Amino acid sequence: MTIGVAPTPDEFREVGPDGCVIVVDVFRASTTITTAIAAGARFVLPVADVEQAVRLIEPYSRGEALLGGERECRRIEGFDLGNSPREYTREKVGGKVVVFTTTNGTRALLSAADAGTVLVGCFLNFSATAAKAAERSRVTILCAGNSGELSLEDFVCAGGLVDRLAGRSDTLNDAAIAARAAFRQLNRTLNRSLLASGHARHLIELGFRSDLEYSLRNDAVPAVPALKEGRLASA
Amino acid sequence: MTIGVAPTPDEFREVGPDGCVIVVDVFRASTTITTAIAAGARFVLPVADVEQAVRLIEPYSRGEALLGGERECRRIEGFDLGNSPREYTREKVGGKVVVFTTTNGTRALLSAADAGTVLVGCFLNFSATAAKAAERSRVTILCAGNSGELSLEDFVCAGGLVDRLAGRSDTLNDAAIAARAAFRQLNRTLNRSLLASGHARHLIELGFRSDLEYSLRNDAVPAVPALKEGRLASA
Repeated sequence: MTIGVAPTPDEFREVGPDGCVIVVDVFRASTTITTAIAAGARFVLPVADVEQAVRLIEPYSRGEALLGGERECRRIEGFDLGNSPREYTREKVGGKVVVFTTTNGTRALLSAADAGTVLVGCFLNFSATAAKAAERSRVTILCAGNSGELSLEDFVCAGGLVDRLAGRSDTLNDAAIAARAAFRQLNRTLNRSLLASGHARHLIELGFRSDLEYSLRNDAVPAVPALKEGRLASA
Repeated sequence: MTIGVAPTPDEFREVGPDGCVIVVDVFRASTTITTAIAAGARFVLPVADVEQAVRLIEPYSRGEALLGGERECRRIEGFDLGNSPREYTREKVGGKVVVFTTTNGTRALLSAADAGTVLVGCFLNFSATAAKAAERSRVTILCAGNSGELSLEDFVCAGGLVDRLAGRSDTLNDAAIAARAAFRQLNRTLNRSLLASGHARHLIELGFRSDLEYSLRNDAVPAVPALKEGRLASA
């Protein structure tokens, strides 16, 4: 198996139709999408910008689709839902389409769209995602990062996936070796370490602490969203 | 103290006239520049491309200046020296100007040129570089990386510098926390881990193994090159 980590979308190199990409945006898009799919959303439609989201929801009838996402961490004006995973309950999203745009996560997803398999991974669905990826010979873990910079929670989650997937004979890129080492070093104090990341501290200031604690619940939600023809649904 | 790591030049944000930047390109530009300065080179002039190097050496008389550097890891045609640190002996470079261009290292140096202080760091001058940086309140460690991707040896060397510099009350960015964790995890098997990095394996294939072993000699050469008005000389 060949395993790569891209600490930011800029470092992602296309993997082609044989490759499997796991897009990781722990705080919070991967966690929110996983929660929405587990709660029975028909599918999540990731889009790059607000204007496109508003345009893409037009064909749907009222009550059939919702607008979700954030800019500067907050719900977008006129949108039904923000980027707090626990807003995405069965009551709100069950059976519905969610047109979804966030600052980092949906852009990372769209940059991976040409890969044969694109999965959405996070701590919430950690083992289930690793099990899906373990079937593939070539896996790249694409961290959403934060405005083009390495994000601790995404990098360490990626490192945990490498740690789970890699055997002795597997080939790892440098970032995968580094991420696995960081994961192993921080593993015993993982939640405390990740709540001290730059993005976490900013979200806590804005009142989203409970989102972060939820995002760090390992294997709490075993759904693995996969991207097919632009739509995220259960893999 | 505020300490940041930029795992690649793309993640580097300008630090302004108060900031101190340590440019790390372990394999091999930082190691070569440090060796050249310790061997008595008058100064090293880092330039982005070959054409510029050839133009900048013109005003110097024969024997006063040398052309050094690499493309695709090998000495550039017509250049006096490559990027093997041990070519840069006192006999060859003592008292001379070295006009120097490499694929990753010199570009990283030039992207940091606006900072108040720019130092060249590596394992060879590890403690001396940390001691110089410890005088400053704001330090960014800029990893040259490898063609825009994280390089294990640069990231782990940066993590070692963070580990040396950071006290309990210091503010670290996410990449600094991750790099320090990776350094601590890999520290006991550092040389073996770093000789397995992608860049190291490529250089070993090309016959440069002894350069790498030299590059990993901790504190062997205490010179700290600093960039002043475009020229690298002893700090």
